[in-house]
Amino acid sequence: MYDIIKKKRDNGELTKEEIEFFINGYSSGEIPDYQVSALLMAIYLNEMSEDETSNLTEAMMNSGDIIDLSNIKGIKVDKHSTGGVGDKTTIALIPLVASCGAVVAKMSGRGLGHTGGTIDKLESIEEFSTSMSKEKFVDSVNSSGMAVCGQSEEVAIADKKIYALRDVTATVDNISLIASSIMSKKLATGADKLILDVKTGDGAFMTEYSDALKLAKEMVKIGENMNRETVAIITGMEEPLGCAVGNSLEVVEAVETLKGRGPKDFERLCITLGAYMLTLSKCAFGFEKGTKKIREAIQSGAALEKFREFVVNQGGNPAFIDDYSLLPQAKYKYEVKSSDDGYVSRIEAEKIGMGAMFLGAGREKKGDELDLSVGIVLSKKVGDEVHTGDVLAVIHYNDEEKLRSAKGIIEAAYSYSEEKVLKPKLIYSIVAKDRVIEIN
Amino acid sequence: MYDIIKKKRDNGELTKEEIEFFINGYSSGEIPDYQVSALLMAIYLNEMSEDETSNLTEAMMNSGDIIDLSNIKGIKVDKHSTGGVGDKTTIALIPLVASCGAVVAKMSGRGLGHTGGTIDKLESIEEFSTSMSKEKFVDSVNSSGMAVCGQSEEVAIADKKIYALRDVTATVDNISLIASSIMSKKLATGADKLILDVKTGDGAFMTEYSDALKLAKEMVKIGENMNRETVAIITGMEEPLGCAVGNSLEVVEAVETLKGRGPKDFERLCITLGAYMLTLSKCAFGFEKGTKKIREAIQSGAALEKFREFVVNQGGNPAFIDDYSLLPQAKYKYEVKSSDDGYVSRIEAEKIGMGAMFLGAGREKKGDELDLSVGIVLSKKVGDEVHTGDVLAVIHYNDEEKLRSAKGIIEAAYSYSEEKVLKPKLIYSIVAKDRVIEIN
Repeated sequence: MYDIIKKKRDNGELTKEEIEFFINGYSSGEIPDYQVSALLMAIYLNEMSEDETSNLTEAMMNSGDIIDLSNIKGIKVDKHSTGGVGDKTTIALIPLVASCGAVVAKMSGRGLGHTGGTIDKLESIEEFSTSMSKEKFVDSVNSSGMAVCGQSEEVAIADKKIYALRDVTATVDNISLIASSIMSKKLATGADKLILDVKTGDGAFMTEYSDALKLAKEMVKIGENMNRETVAIITGMEEPLGCAVGNSLEVVEAVETLKGRGPKDFERLCITLGAYMLTLSKCAFGFEKGTKKIREAIQSGAALEKFREFVVNQGGNPAFIDDYSLLPQAKYKYEVKSSDDGYVSRIEAEKIGMGAMFLGAGREKKGDELDLSVGIVLSKKVGDEVHTGDVLAVIHYNDEEKLRSAKGIIEAAYSYSEEKVLKPKLIYSIVAKDRVIEIN
Repeated sequence: MYDIIKKKRDNGELTKEEIEFFINGYSSGEIPDYQVSALLMAIYLNEMSEDETSNLTEAMMNSGDIIDLSNIKGIKVDKHSTGGVGDKTTIALIPLVASCGAVVAKMSGRGLGHTGGTIDKLESIEEFSTSMSKEKFVDSVNSSGMAVCGQSEEVAIADKKIYALRDVTATVDNISLIASSIMSKKLATGADKLILDVKTGDGAFMTEYSDALKLAKEMVKIGENMNRETVAIITGMEEPLGCAVGNSLEVVEAVETLKGRGPKDFERLCITLGAYMLTLSKCAFGFEKGTKKIREAIQSGAALEKFREFVVNQGGNPAFIDDYSLLPQAKYKYEVKSSDDGYVSRIEAEKIGMGAMFLGAGREKKGDELDLSVGIVLSKKVGDEVHTGDVLAVIHYNDEEKLRSAKGIIEAAYSYSEEKVLKPKLIYSIVAKDRVIEIN
């Protein structure tokens, strides 16, 4: 291990064998934390080559369970988002593409953040469960084209250990380390094709577009190097995505979108991601045809029906689809009002997210209980005209004290302008093998 | 600590307070190894400023005992060498300068290496001891101008802990870290003035002159920043220093040098270092006068008498000074002979040192027992003319098996040339406050 640290320190390129030695030794506990943290800092400062990043990804992927989806027929397509505020995309997107013939065997997590993860959100639905046997999971995907289950804790074990160490040694925000961490988990869960939603902007992990592009390119390359066709879409995360931030509130917004009544930005994101997923899984020939299919699935109600089937398959009561009051409801509502006339020039996603967390919608640390009913629904988005006293957002809350902590930061998230303001950019670019398509 | 790692990672300059926080936290065990090793790698790759290096040195110095020499009268002067093969300088140099009026309260170590440290070498002398009370140490220096005692394990504790970590995380050979490690220990042991013998060449830690110069400059600056006048002398370590390599063999060579019969290179080094020590401690006005004083101390026998007084003061039997057979003697001798006619073009110090270690003269790991009698005495040095069959070196050994391991590497240390060869450079330059004097 000493020689491996020294080589990377001196800007050498680690071989596949050296990377495997390091990952296997660290997983087994033979290599101590202090050597790995020194290596991680050397990697952070000297960076990794494309080969090193791919080899690290593969070694971390192989450090835990590899999910075998070979009993599922067809081209399995998966989607991953680097995360943002109000990102309920999976819930609407998966039934959308499944209703168009795509096959999605989705493993999702809970995780830390402003709200829960996809699984937490889906658990707003009465009796809904993501715990199921592998047989049941495979059967559901084969019969219905989609299923969602919790991600095994045994996937990419080395990545978990390394991530915990990076977190305390200031080595998190290195693009190659981020790329290999994400991809090691996605590749271990077995899909054939992968769509990555890489967020950029103040509310995203990658605030700069150039960093998001670099991360997207690295992940696409890793996918290609491991024979899993991967397309990344770089999308904006300046203001929250859609209007709802909070677990059950986001489920409602996802269902509304399947009914054709979703917020424009969120609907556009689902259509774009969906069109590429259909293209990758050969359910549509090209993006234009994919887009058309997705729009039709919304208009015809096919996507909503697929969602209903999915809820039933996972043991949930689908009645809420027609009566949202069957989902967890917060006891009180508080209206945030505009103190100005003009146009909303900015809604800082980060602050809205913090507000949601203060209300109880997210976990600050592992094991925290979530309040699935609370959250924020934006009434105005960037570019909208407002007058003094207009409702900007409605806070759904259960506890006066939590409201007090959340209110200030939510109000502070808004900025105004006297001049007209353009809607923020949603789709920046598409990154596929050997090419980047900028979207205007 | 996270923020400190992050700051250094991003090439920021750590404040005195941040460095103290890190050193105190690590000494007390509150900061874990894995965070310190990440910081050390960031320091290694992004380097430290002069202020950071001085502040690190001071914090490490303050992490353990500070030796108080205020009861010793006069200007205390100390000497440190970065280490080389055949470096018995302290043994001859200290009585030389003490006989000229300098005050030397020397703390020495054992350490790992090709031979033992100064204390091991001196322990070749019957009954000689470096364990003594602080009072006895102070009294000896006050009455005799010199004394040598073992260095407390409690000096610069943080440096020991950090060195152990650097050793396993490939962060040893960074000049600022080396400089602060050496200086934290030297400054904690209390001398007012300091002479540093910084070795360069294949047999030294700093093989390149430019690195040795950088290290010398950093150490001189640290000394100045902490109000301890410091001069560094950069000296060559291509071939072994003098002829003897091995503990009691080196004592003999040091005594021979005090008698005016030492090898030319070793004598010159002692005179140069000694002249600067006299200048620094105001026992001589300038290098020329210092040199003259040192030469006179050899010629008059004053230096040898001072050495005899020193041995007696430390409980040793001085009879060996007139009869070297009273020192530990190896049972057997083996002559390494020249296989060529020509000139010795190279004697690789590193290989001779390894040979001595294989014979049992040095420690490979802490606690190893030394054989004080064994070693190598070179009969030919670089530049000497040799004929086939001439004796190049005599190996003193006690064990046939050890001779077998040592012989090959000692023979391999020699190279020959048909052309005349210049003696290797011994004194490269003098580094003092704000200036470097190159020596031709």
